[in-house]
Amino acid sequence: MSTATPATLPDLATADVVDLAAAVCDIASVSGGETALADAVAVALAAHAHLEVLRDGDAVVARTSLGRERRVVVAGHIDTVPIKGNVPTWRAVADDGTEELWGRGTVDMKGGVAVALHLAAALTEPRWDVTWVFYDHEEVASELNGLGRLVRLHPDWVAGDLAVLGEPTAGGIEGGCNGTLRAEVSTTGRTAHSARGWRGVNAVHAAAGILDRLNEYEPREVDVDGLVYREGLNAVRVTGGIADNMIPDSCVVTVNYRFAPSTTPAQAEAHVREVFAGYDLRVTDLAGGARPGLDDPLVAGFVDAVTGVTGGAPGPKYGWTDVARFAELGVPAVNFGPGDPMLAHADDERCPVDQIRTCALALRAWLAQGA
Amino acid sequence: MSTATPATLPDLATADVVDLAAAVCDIASVSGGETALADAVAVALAAHAHLEVLRDGDAVVARTSLGRERRVVVAGHIDTVPIKGNVPTWRAVADDGTEELWGRGTVDMKGGVAVALHLAAALTEPRWDVTWVFYDHEEVASELNGLGRLVRLHPDWVAGDLAVLGEPTAGGIEGGCNGTLRAEVSTTGRTAHSARGWRGVNAVHAAAGILDRLNEYEPREVDVDGLVYREGLNAVRVTGGIADNMIPDSCVVTVNYRFAPSTTPAQAEAHVREVFAGYDLRVTDLAGGARPGLDDPLVAGFVDAVTGVTGGAPGPKYGWTDVARFAELGVPAVNFGPGDPMLAHADDERCPVDQIRTCALALRAWLAQGA
Repeated sequence: MSTATPATLPDLATADVVDLAAAVCDIASVSGGETALADAVAVALAAHAHLEVLRDGDAVVARTSLGRERRVVVAGHIDTVPIKGNVPTWRAVADDGTEELWGRGTVDMKGGVAVALHLAAALTEPRWDVTWVFYDHEEVASELNGLGRLVRLHPDWVAGDLAVLGEPTAGGIEGGCNGTLRAEVSTTGRTAHSARGWRGVNAVHAAAGILDRLNEYEPREVDVDGLVYREGLNAVRVTGGIADNMIPDSCVVTVNYRFAPSTTPAQAEAHVREVFAGYDLRVTDLAGGARPGLDDPLVAGFVDAVTGVTGGAPGPKYGWTDVARFAELGVPAVNFGPGDPMLAHADDERCPVDQIRTCALALRAWLAQGA
Repeated sequence: MSTATPATLPDLATADVVDLAAAVCDIASVSGGETALADAVAVALAAHAHLEVLRDGDAVVARTSLGRERRVVVAGHIDTVPIKGNVPTWRAVADDGTEELWGRGTVDMKGGVAVALHLAAALTEPRWDVTWVFYDHEEVASELNGLGRLVRLHPDWVAGDLAVLGEPTAGGIEGGCNGTLRAEVSTTGRTAHSARGWRGVNAVHAAAGILDRLNEYEPREVDVDGLVYREGLNAVRVTGGIADNMIPDSCVVTVNYRFAPSTTPAQAEAHVREVFAGYDLRVTDLAGGARPGLDDPLVAGFVDAVTGVTGGAPGPKYGWTDVARFAELGVPAVNFGPGDPMLAHADDERCPVDQIRTCALALRAWLAQGA
């Protein structure tokens, strides 16, 4: 056991949210090593009497119980990908005058975590009951995911009418997410020495038909709850061949289908099987998307309040994110957080400090309504 | 240095050729470990005064100098692939009554080596001058090949008007060999996250065009010196993709072109570049074939004498073999030896003893003509 002084965070309610983001980043928490940060988060939240604090492993949940008509969940992961000499954080001013917080986690997603920690403490009487979720193991294998664990073991801790996931969206609202299916589409042949190729059946040549179907495929655009989700069907890998002098007896094209959240996983699989009818197909990964739920007045209120501060209209989320874990519980979900997602995991990860402040203001504008 | 008694071979001229084949197999000589066998071969050949014995590394050459009008080269490699518990050799009778010599090297190609050793010693006055070549490192990287080394360093040791390579042909004559070209034909694209595939350019999808050309390709059949060589153009490998959620920015199809010995390497490359015009193409391996030279009276005499014993008509050799190294010297070459080539390198490698005897009789019939 370490005898070092436990890492601590400044007072969540009174600290500047950007200082708080830096403090959260400066407690290193690469996936699997979140305990010090989870401890600090749990201690800092427990100092606020309006919150009930729960814990499972390195996931920390804090919630109000004000008897509000509806409950919202604000969630974010506290782990990061490995540090590349970029912790502790530092600030710098870009050529265009933008002040930025640099370092691992500033984008993905300790900026969003700081916004949530600050508001969890500061909003003692929010408009809706709020469950604040801080979870572990998002950047590693899906089966380790802390939010998935809470959904399985403590569904009541993450229940609600709308979930806001603080993943980086550069301060815009990205609703729901597309689902994702991965499958291996394969051909088989018969091997032979390539000096007598006519004795074999070339599985790589036969894969031309698979690629033809991919080239002919017309991806759909699907309106779900008022947002248009663009689908896609792509080969992400191809592999075939045994040796440089052998006719390949197998060729595998790995395809990835990204499908709108109005399509169920079973429908997605049936669609892909139809596209590749006649070929062997094995589904290796399948996760449904999440509806944005923009037709729900609660969600509409969130969008109005936030866009009133940020000025940006909501769009669809294309990448699969943990919002889909809420969809499993029937909870509509949106992505909303500071930082350019293209800089997530980058060596030059950095976040404009104004985006952190704006996200905090926007969420506050929504949750403090009428308070 | 080992102090063990050197391995020895029985008297080459008087031993039964099958006993001799077993003795050659029983001196292990996996590529790189040929010295004991090369020593034994050199000692055994030196016992015969009509032969001049030369040596370079573990290659041993023995030749007559009788002032004959023409000179033939009979060559074989003395190394084997690794032993799989199948040395020393043993004899067994198959269900159909065939007596077989079992063990590593019985097919590839110590049966052929034994035939050559026996006739080198027994034929003191052959019809043509003969150069008998026993060489190392055939079963490993081409640049180590002992015959290639002799061609480079001692071209006069391997010069002649016809070469007979004792590689296994199940006792048939296989003339010359096809050439072989290997090339990487590739597409490039632009990577993107597969959730937003439309931002990228999919190099695997683009490879459909390469496979289409392979499927459309009509391989030629080419008559060379009276034998028909069947060509082939095949993908032997395909690889593309970076990650399961990325649009591939590169796809490489490795193709293998087997071309008739009347086509030069430069012509073969030009042909493949024409087939794949518009694609990046990098040649990674290129070796010309060998003409069978059946239009030469010397070769015709060989064919007549051998087929008079074996009864089988000559055919073309499709696989590239060391006969092509003679082609570099302008020497026509044929493959002729005991053993089923499909059993070369097999765990159950074995050779009918009658094939060893028949090959010895057939070569003797040719070389002893008029003696």
